[in-house]
Amino acid sequence: MRFFSDNAAAAHPAVLDAIIAANRLDTAYDGDAWSLKLDGAFSDLFETPVRALWVTTGTAANCLALAALCPPYGGIICHRDAHIEVDEAGAPAVFTHGAKLILLDGPGAKVTPELVTGALDGIRKDVHQVQPHAISITNATEYGLVHSAAEVAALGDLAKSHGLGLHMDGARFANAVVATGASPADLSWRAGVDTLSFGFVKNGGLNAEALILFKPEMADEVLVRRKRAGHLLSKGRMLAAQILALLDNDLWLSNARAANAAARPLAAAAGDRLVYPVEANELFLRVTADEAARLLALGFDFYDWGSGQIRLVTSWDQDSGSVDKLAAAIKSL
Amino acid sequence: MRFFSDNAAAAHPAVLDAIIAANRLDTAYDGDAWSLKLDGAFSDLFETPVRALWVTTGTAANCLALAALCPPYGGIICHRDAHIEVDEAGAPAVFTHGAKLILLDGPGAKVTPELVTGALDGIRKDVHQVQPHAISITNATEYGLVHSAAEVAALGDLAKSHGLGLHMDGARFANAVVATGASPADLSWRAGVDTLSFGFVKNGGLNAEALILFKPEMADEVLVRRKRAGHLLSKGRMLAAQILALLDNDLWLSNARAANAAARPLAAAAGDRLVYPVEANELFLRVTADEAARLLALGFDFYDWGSGQIRLVTSWDQDSGSVDKLAAAIKSL
Amino acid sequence: MRFFSDNAAAAHPAVLDAIIAANRLDTAYDGDAWSLKLDGAFSDLFETPVRALWVTTGTAANCLALAALCPPYGGIICHRDAHIEVDEAGAPAVFTHGAKLILLDGPGAKVTPELVTGALDGIRKDVHQVQPHAISITNATEYGLVHSAAEVAALGDLAKSHGLGLHMDGARFANAVVATGASPADLSWRAGVDTLSFGFVKNGGLNAEALILFKPEMADEVLVRRKRAGHLLSKGRMLAAQILALLDNDLWLSNARAANAAARPLAAAAGDRLVYPVEANELFLRVTADEAARLLALGFDFYDWGSGQIRLVTSWDQDSGSVDKLAAAIKSL
Amino acid sequence: MRFFSDNAAAAHPAVLDAIIAANRLDTAYDGDAWSLKLDGAFSDLFETPVRALWVTTGTAANCLALAALCPPYGGIICHRDAHIEVDEAGAPAVFTHGAKLILLDGPGAKVTPELVTGALDGIRKDVHQVQPHAISITNATEYGLVHSAAEVAALGDLAKSHGLGLHMDGARFANAVVATGASPADLSWRAGVDTLSFGFVKNGGLNAEALILFKPEMADEVLVRRKRAGHLLSKGRMLAAQILALLDNDLWLSNARAANAAARPLAAAAGDRLVYPVEANELFLRVTADEAARLLALGFDFYDWGSGQIRLVTSWDQDSGSVDKLAAAIKSL
Repeated sequence: MRFFSDNAAAAHPAVLDAIIAANRLDTAYDGDAWSLKLDGAFSDLFETPVRALWVTTGTAANCLALAALCPPYGGIICHRDAHIEVDEAGAPAVFTHGAKLILLDGPGAKVTPELVTGALDGIRKDVHQVQPHAISITNATEYGLVHSAAEVAALGDLAKSHGLGLHMDGARFANAVVATGASPADLSWRAGVDTLSFGFVKNGGLNAEALILFKPEMADEVLVRRKRAGHLLSKGRMLAAQILALLDNDLWLSNARAANAAARPLAAAAGDRLVYPVEANELFLRVTADEAARLLALGFDFYDWGSGQIRLVTSWDQDSGSVDKLAAAIKSL
Repeated sequence: MRFFSDNAAAAHPAVLDAIIAANRLDTAYDGDAWSLKLDGAFSDLFETPVRALWVTTGTAANCLALAALCPPYGGIICHRDAHIEVDEAGAPAVFTHGAKLILLDGPGAKVTPELVTGALDGIRKDVHQVQPHAISITNATEYGLVHSAAEVAALGDLAKSHGLGLHMDGARFANAVVATGASPADLSWRAGVDTLSFGFVKNGGLNAEALILFKPEMADEVLVRRKRAGHLLSKGRMLAAQILALLDNDLWLSNARAANAAARPLAAAAGDRLVYPVEANELFLRVTADEAARLLALGFDFYDWGSGQIRLVTSWDQDSGSVDKLAAAIKSL
Repeated sequence: MRFFSDNAAAAHPAVLDAIIAANRLDTAYDGDAWSLKLDGAFSDLFETPVRALWVTTGTAANCLALAALCPPYGGIICHRDAHIEVDEAGAPAVFTHGAKLILLDGPGAKVTPELVTGALDGIRKDVHQVQPHAISITNATEYGLVHSAAEVAALGDLAKSHGLGLHMDGARFANAVVATGASPADLSWRAGVDTLSFGFVKNGGLNAEALILFKPEMADEVLVRRKRAGHLLSKGRMLAAQILALLDNDLWLSNARAANAAARPLAAAAGDRLVYPVEANELFLRVTADEAARLLALGFDFYDWGSGQIRLVTSWDQDSGSVDKLAAAIKSL
Repeated sequence: MRFFSDNAAAAHPAVLDAIIAANRLDTAYDGDAWSLKLDGAFSDLFETPVRALWVTTGTAANCLALAALCPPYGGIICHRDAHIEVDEAGAPAVFTHGAKLILLDGPGAKVTPELVTGALDGIRKDVHQVQPHAISITNATEYGLVHSAAEVAALGDLAKSHGLGLHMDGARFANAVVATGASPADLSWRAGVDTLSFGFVKNGGLNAEALILFKPEMADEVLVRRKRAGHLLSKGRMLAAQILALLDNDLWLSNARAANAAARPLAAAAGDRLVYPVEANELFLRVTADEAARLLALGFDFYDWGSGQIRLVTSWDQDSGSVDKLAAAIKSL
């Protein structure tokens, strides 16, 4: 029973149907009928004109988004547990050509104005120190916490007042929208977000993510950078079709709702074992090595997070049977 | 009737079936059952132990292959009409971190030992000039010509004698194998090729290409570079499954055979209009602007190549009806 | 008797005196009294407000200038014999993070509007091809020809009409000013030049070159890039002092005048052997291998340029005796 | 009275004399008589065959040294207060093409095996996390502490056991040699150091630093990288001559001895105000804002280090009068 990540779940059947439907002749790259619908679909969703590009990975989405906000000689303020710092193999340096990640501490991978201000205060304004050009936050965070619309807006204000861009790694943006109850617009551009990596692969997609540019004029450059990173697929319609299928009838929201909901019984069962409040679809539990071994022996699959912690992640297609079994197992530890 | 490129054709039904079959829980990234089969499948095909990695674009395959052969401060000798020079938006510079493409002239985008030797002779051996580290050739070339196994071997010998790596952009490797009748092994590593971009997207795939490393020890570094370029998809099984489906029962060969075969009646009809002999699935024809307009008016879709030339490309799924019609139309110009 | 290059000549005594005079305590980097005078000194010389930065090599000046005009994903149009293409080991790719040099043919390394237009016409306006962002010319060229103020202005107009920046590699700008009789302003910003590498090392300097930014707002970024490339020396006053010494009393002009003048008797002696007209301080002569050997045997030092040509360069301190001897030797071949 | 840095001191008269003596015709770049002596001079000094290259800044020396040890996709373990992290504007990312600095905590910018082991333990061995390829330490550190030969050797052993290269930023290597009493060999290659930035500019040089490669076979690549970063000066003899002058008669040692000695009376006067023991030529003192203002008012120039600390640095040419006055002033605070 898989709880190790939502990134290995199956694609939603509607996504496969959409690929099959798109499997006919059309223009190559992103000139096809499906790709051309993305800007409009996301502009509707976000209630403002946006440009939307498909890519195949969250890493590509994040790094293109960062390169749009930060020159090679600039810095990007982010949490030291951010995916871009910890799990992207240095990809931001490739796409930005060497921009520096300026790291924040703090629990749960959440970024706060206080943390950012502290970092800013520590940087001399001269040519010897890398000057920040952007802030990047993750929502929901790598530890399953959410930034509320108000929290994002506070960061957006701070960013604006310092002339910094604001990027949101939304690999689990859907889960954050569901968790906060905020509209996509309120949780992004209305709160000052300039670029959003809008994840679909963890939420029922096969291999399509969306990069949303809230300043549409950024697109010309980002389109070049996408090609230049080898990320312009010739049959782009097969990616666009996936995204459109997930937007259709708010399938992305119902998928995320299911994932978040599956986490709740586990959170209730875990009680004091929880390292962080469970706000989306990730749980971090304190367990002994022996307890972890017992869960594994019962057929539950998860990450050992080190330091006596394990990580559990629920997915859009998490079956309730396995959730109930795991909840019971946790209680009985 | 589409003749503008083979890169916009539909995916083969077997490929879609394979994706559907792979759409279930498995390990993320490339640890899944399908991805783990690639090394073996290609080692069998090439009759030698190889490492094989999926990527989603030919540009990514090419550039990872080049980065494996050339340091940032080195040069890569290629034809000035090579895809890596003309149509990849400078991606080789991103992946290699600035290696220089050293360009050759000559008809039909074919690379010959004479051309390479000429380039080598023009480079002073000092720190002021970029020193070559690799040769890159395309097979079949961007103009539909093939390098025979013997021709590749001559380049392989030359490369070895100068300490240069040899990369083959095989976006249409299948078409070259069919056209030359050479075995995959004879056309690649036995002829000195170190890294091969083995194209599937133009040949019935959906969005999976293979990068073949004939020196398996190169893989550790290339795997890191793939991740670092944002090209490590989390549901990699959906790419591996495509490739395995095309290898199965030599579907890749029958697809390429169909594409090449569709070009022949057109070549026969074109006669003296042909700019190059038609060896694979691309045709370049001399036509007047008026003649081009007439073909367009008849519903044929193709690229205007400038200088009074048009490019026609046939695909694995080219229907014979449209081929016959186009052949007739060309004859009647 | 040295005729192989002007870049190995001695520094002018006034330059050494200036270094000695500057060898006392002052602020580090470029905050010292000498460095602070550069903007003013060059603004006076160019009759417009400029920012002027010292660097230690022409390669650094050129590449910082290019990075100011072209993003990593852009292209720079230049001659295939340009120093930035031929003799800087790929440095432009380091400083620009991968911008592409788009090469022009044509005699004598001169760039003309026709050549540039031809290159522009060959580039499709899409994301697959690298789009040009700048033009770089060398004045005097690598073959000792000069671009007149009118010729530069024609390129400046073309650049502006296509939204391209214009860089001038002026490693021998002084020789070009002397040769053309144009004012520094007319030969640079009034003709549309945005960034100028103003060479001093070949003209009596020890190890200081100047990078002139005619759009002063470019400086903030370039100052960061200079530091980031390891080119911000802590005792910058020792560089600024050299430049100020050469600007003083137009020493840079008298030095260049001397160098150009020393070339004339040689040009007269060479007659039909000249490959190009001698407009500055470089001569390219057609000689047989035997003739070259005889010149060497007589103690003249020069570069074998291949293809039956040799290169002679005269310097600011060329002694007339050696010039007379070489002129006689050439005549007697 | 200057105590803000040793990097703005005057050059030693012997250095200027050497420049003047070298100011005559010779081969360009590094083929001249002076440059050719460097390998031998440093091989003698280090009692082993080394390659030695001049560069003009410590940043260039450090970054070339790092690029020789770490690929673009690798990581370099260093202290978070290291100059390469804090004060080089991201230059390591330029020269290495994006390698990541992996930061250690700990007092006084000293690197210990425990700190390095802690960092290594925190890195998963997979393609998602940047893998370390090198360790970089500074000696004397940015806070004026020294790593003894035994301390360096412990790091060297650790590096070797993990397959990591070891770089020493020796901007104040001379001060460390004097402070530890260790031989240059014992403090570097015998302790496992692979590449050493050997500083001269802070120790009486004008604008020449040396990069020492203890694995001579590294030189071919580093020479290319130096040129490619715009750091190959055409009149290199003027740099080599400076270094040779400082090596001559151990002038570098007597200069460093003078600088270190000048710090001692200040350290004695500072007593409990010292943040770190004074081992070389830097002092960090706890002072109130009012006390700092009083020192400034008395004509002493130094850096406000924030958090109630000031930094004082003594130089090779520190006059004893100003030292005595400052010592008295500190005592009387």
